[in-house]
Amino acid sequence: MKKLSVAAGLLIILASCNTSNAKIENTNTVNKADSTTIKNIFNTALTQGACYQWLDVLSNDIGGRLSGSPEAQQAVEWGKNLMTQLKFDNVWLQPVMVPHWVRGEKEEAYFTVNNTKYNVPVCALGGSIPTPENGITGEVVEVKSLEEAEQLGEKLKGKIVFFNRPFDDTLIQTFKAYGGCVDQRVNGAKITGKFGVLGVIVRSMTSSIDDYPHTGVMRYGDISDDEKVPAAAISTKAANLLSEKLKENPNLTFYFKQRCKTLPDAPSFNVIGEITGTKYPEKYITVGGHLDSWDLGDGAHDDGAGIVQSIEVVRLLKLNNIQPKHTIRVVLFMNEENGLRGGKKYAEEAKQKNEIHIAALESDAGGHTPRGFSFSATNKNADLFVSWKPLLAPYGLYQIEKGGSGADIGPLKSETISLFGYRPDSQRYFDYHHTEIDTFDKVNKRELELGAASMTALIYLLDNYLD
Amino acid sequence: MKKLSVAAGLLIILASCNTSNAKIENTNTVNKADSTTIKNIFNTALTQGACYQWLDVLSNDIGGRLSGSPEAQQAVEWGKNLMTQLKFDNVWLQPVMVPHWVRGEKEEAYFTVNNTKYNVPVCALGGSIPTPENGITGEVVEVKSLEEAEQLGEKLKGKIVFFNRPFDDTLIQTFKAYGGCVDQRVNGAKITGKFGVLGVIVRSMTSSIDDYPHTGVMRYGDISDDEKVPAAAISTKAANLLSEKLKENPNLTFYFKQRCKTLPDAPSFNVIGEITGTKYPEKYITVGGHLDSWDLGDGAHDDGAGIVQSIEVVRLLKLNNIQPKHTIRVVLFMNEENGLRGGKKYAEEAKQKNEIHIAALESDAGGHTPRGFSFSATNKNADLFVSWKPLLAPYGLYQIEKGGSGADIGPLKSETISLFGYRPDSQRYFDYHHTEIDTFDKVNKRELELGAASMTALIYLLDNYLD
Repeated sequence: MKKLSVAAGLLIILASCNTSNAKIENTNTVNKADSTTIKNIFNTALTQGACYQWLDVLSNDIGGRLSGSPEAQQAVEWGKNLMTQLKFDNVWLQPVMVPHWVRGEKEEAYFTVNNTKYNVPVCALGGSIPTPENGITGEVVEVKSLEEAEQLGEKLKGKIVFFNRPFDDTLIQTFKAYGGCVDQRVNGAKITGKFGVLGVIVRSMTSSIDDYPHTGVMRYGDISDDEKVPAAAISTKAANLLSEKLKENPNLTFYFKQRCKTLPDAPSFNVIGEITGTKYPEKYITVGGHLDSWDLGDGAHDDGAGIVQSIEVVRLLKLNNIQPKHTIRVVLFMNEENGLRGGKKYAEEAKQKNEIHIAALESDAGGHTPRGFSFSATNKNADLFVSWKPLLAPYGLYQIEKGGSGADIGPLKSETISLFGYRPDSQRYFDYHHTEIDTFDKVNKRELELGAASMTALIYLLDNYLD
Repeated sequence: MKKLSVAAGLLIILASCNTSNAKIENTNTVNKADSTTIKNIFNTALTQGACYQWLDVLSNDIGGRLSGSPEAQQAVEWGKNLMTQLKFDNVWLQPVMVPHWVRGEKEEAYFTVNNTKYNVPVCALGGSIPTPENGITGEVVEVKSLEEAEQLGEKLKGKIVFFNRPFDDTLIQTFKAYGGCVDQRVNGAKITGKFGVLGVIVRSMTSSIDDYPHTGVMRYGDISDDEKVPAAAISTKAANLLSEKLKENPNLTFYFKQRCKTLPDAPSFNVIGEITGTKYPEKYITVGGHLDSWDLGDGAHDDGAGIVQSIEVVRLLKLNNIQPKHTIRVVLFMNEENGLRGGKKYAEEAKQKNEIHIAALESDAGGHTPRGFSFSATNKNADLFVSWKPLLAPYGLYQIEKGGSGADIGPLKSETISLFGYRPDSQRYFDYHHTEIDTFDKVNKRELELGAASMTALIYLLDNYLD
């Protein structure tokens, strides 16, 4: 028995060693063909890339393109024409009704303390109601959280609430710092309206201390109209100044005026282009970004980058004579910023038509240098994706790990689909996000192209290894 | 025997399994204390960092600081004062004679083809002789390599040689593309002078197609004075235009004028600050960058970033109450750009004094987001360094691998010393390198601080694990 058990033990150990060797060999076998294909994809992206020039057009010729705006409609037409010119097999517009909020004339704000007037940069938050025509003047209560505001309750009556919790700069991933603050912007007005406040001012969502207010969506939820108050973002530099002056004089008065308004929902479109799969034409892999952007800048990083990279994926596949087995769909989603109507519509129609979606990839984290992909998937698929690390690492794609994907593809979620988010470096992203300086000149050509190549490499692998 | 051999085989396999388990356990044990320390280092760098403000002063108040210039001397004094204020144990200046080349009045260049004159941006290469006062006019021969120029030989007589081999954009690491082209800039004039050419024009060292000429060192070596010809860089956009027009008219004439000259060697200094080791005060770990820069921009990325990060290393150690066992030396090397006199002097004096240098780290690849470190070391130490990967990966430092280190610390090389180069992301570096747009505004605060923290973490680990 002892002899047997030793031998059995040995077998088990050998078997385990063999398994791991076999895995390594498999990976190496896979590596050779795939790594050549991926290298070719990167070569063409970096030497024959078109996405940077497309982004120049989208950013500089069309510009900021908030849902419902004429620029959003121009972007729809541009996207449709571009994919048609690139000889996608099918290109069409998917109608969707979108919110239509307009900023109106430029906002104004200042505060006065000890007879000195400080002008401060603010901008209305998307979805906010306007102030009265002559603006709002009131004393300010500074809080650091929704909870603190809730606790103050009726003490906020007749005041302007100033949400001033900053980014946690110790978080290496800036999206986590954003996630830790953005509740103030989204829900600040909703939760304080019931206390009879005059309005809400929110510190801009960035680590950068500068003069640019960051807009972004806010929501009133289902509160009644008489509880709705105007909400604006204030630049970080002005937020710091206001906080400092409030310590000197808690009774200083703050003034702001904004003339934004919400119009009736407007007709718009997702723009969809596809190349038909050779083996599984009825199974879809979707890649996309969002075509709408905020109105202040030209939306180059958010999310012009994701749009042009997604279209470039198909161009790079074609340039490398890769004929996908599955149907590859490029979707330029409308209305990610203030409604997600495009993402919801796309998933709804996919469900109605019983389409089989096996994977989706979104690029909506800017056009910076590649770091990796995060994904949600079955455990079996997760193991497969992680096994691709050696193929992707030579391109700086070290972070292949479970995590979020993208807002627009989120509604496609099912038990079987693999959802991916492209993850470029995040350090600079919130310097520009939702501001007037999210502009084309902030995007680096090679970084953008490397991102497009990274996404193409992933789509190639997904198409090759998923059924 | 058979039974024994099975048992022996089992033991060998178990031993090998145990070794690998032990390694993993050791790493995990190490991880806990070290990972806390490293997290604290990053926290302080990102919330109490000083290096970005120092870089503002070095870049904007002092500016470009070529060896021998008044600005280089101001930078020496600034560095000495800063390390003194930071209460380094010892701060001193190490005298070194440096080359003293001056650019003189702004360069001019144009070419004329079919009676149309095209003005083009050029700049003298560092170390070049001037043109005659009225400039040089001549026909142009375009070549793609030193070899091609050698082969043309006497056919180049009386011509201006135009070296126009571009960056290989398919290389993911831009430093490799630079390495594949820079021979044209360094040796183009040296190898063509003997053929009686009028001058040399070199395509700028960048992937970016723009209007900025990139200066940088060139060398005549030991050729005689009458074989020396003036050499200038031309912007990539102008290089493309010139190349295109040469195809239309190979006899077009090119004019350039530069009034640079080499003055007698000037006295200057390396700036050295150290904190004394608690256990091995006589053993040194050096961290540094180069204090000189080219004159066109303000040298923010090359290498102001490395300078302020190196000083910040000691400040971050102090802030975290880390008392190093070894003496940590911060060295602000003079004259990396056009002579390496500072690096050579430092190594020479270290040898004279029989100082024991166990490790050195240089940051001279810009202030962009961290990617890793490359190193040269003994195999034993290399294994140790690679085992730190799990400690460094949370900060984006995935690339811990053998490779180059830095020009200034190169002369310290020995059989035992470990030499490290800090490796930030390289995609944007050559957009700015040696041009008028290498300026403070191109540096991102968080990226710079993450670099300083990365370097501090490495110095902490080296101090902790090397004897």
